Amino acid sequence: MKTSAIFYHAGCPVCIEAEHQVAEALDLARYDVKIVHLGEQKDQISVAEGAGVKSVPALVIGGAAFHINFGAPMSALKG
Amino acid sequence: MKTSAIFYHAGCPVCIEAEHQVAEALDLARYDVKIVHLGEQKDQISVAEGAGVKSVPALVIGGAAFHINFGAPMSALKG
Repeated sequence: MKTSAIFYHAGCPVCIEAEHQVAEALDLARYDVKIVHLGEQKDQISVAEGAGVKSVPALVIGGAAFHINFGAPMSALKG
Repeated sequence: MKTSAIFYHAGCPVCIEAEHQVAEALDLARYDVKIVHLGEQKDQISVAEGAGVKSVPALVIGGAAFHINFGAPMSALKG
């Protein structure tokens, strides 16, 4: 039985590729990884809130919510 | 060649086990994972800062810094 790992985001165009690095780095042999865009899947907002998600991007692993703040590097904004 | 993934923390007793979940969920076949306690390894603070770490806990994957804010659940404080 794999542990559930859900990465929630809202489509930030600058940060999204970098943020996905965290979800994609998880061990797929041990974790069932899902990526949910809450801007497009609004019915999942209550599910995310129920897991303790207060902000996005967030990663919920085995029911525990981790809030990830990448922030955009200034170089990305200039590009 | 594995990608470097370094998890920086400062020993928060309530959050540490939950925070480690993220580092331990990484795919060890693809990532060379290190866990650094900056309170004990102060010589690593400048290395972490150089990678863009502004706060702990943080995960640096392939040179990109992700700041993780778990926050302590109220239940952990009551226990």
